[in-house]
Amino acid sequence: MEFDKLVHQPTRLQIFAYLYQHGETPFSGLRADLDITEGNLSSHIQKMEDAGAVRVEKEFVDRKPRTTYQLTDDGHEKFEEHIGTLESLIERLGE
Amino acid sequence: MEFDKLVHQPTRLQIFAYLYQHGETPFSGLRADLDITEGNLSSHIQKMEDAGAVRVEKEFVDRKPRTTYQLTDDGHEKFEEHIGTLESLIERLGE
Repeated sequence: MEFDKLVHQPTRLQIFAYLYQHGETPFSGLRADLDITEGNLSSHIQKMEDAGAVRVEKEFVDRKPRTTYQLTDDGHEKFEEHIGTLESLIERLGE
Repeated sequence: MEFDKLVHQPTRLQIFAYLYQHGETPFSGLRADLDITEGNLSSHIQKMEDAGAVRVEKEFVDRKPRTTYQLTDDGHEKFEEHIGTLESLIERLGE
């Protein structure tokens, strides 16, 4: 059984889950749901971006800058694989 | 959603799962199933013992020393809580 540490780390697992469920999300949406500091969130998102799991888009809406995040296809796949691993661990417990 | 880092760390999650399923287990049993180095396994087991999650017993069988490990009641409970957290994360994905 292999755990992908990019996905498994507790804060990132929650970011992955949030983006998986909600699709494209502004920073404020993640902040509101996840109850972590801005610095901590930025640093985890950066790691996910570096690994090609998250796409960051910056645009201007009503002349205000807005940053949104979404999982890339690769990020989506990594998360699904990881959930599959956790599910099989849980299933094995019932044997 | 809170993740207990004692349980969530990937190698320890597997040790917890193994001991949860198998009950009292000799070191060799863990080694065979988990495919990690002896040093790495010892160090994680030590952390689990320090946290009161694992009970270590040393005895002599046919004049050979034998060490066995099992989850304490507290370790059992920590693991079940953690699995509950993972299950609710997975369930939320289906919403």
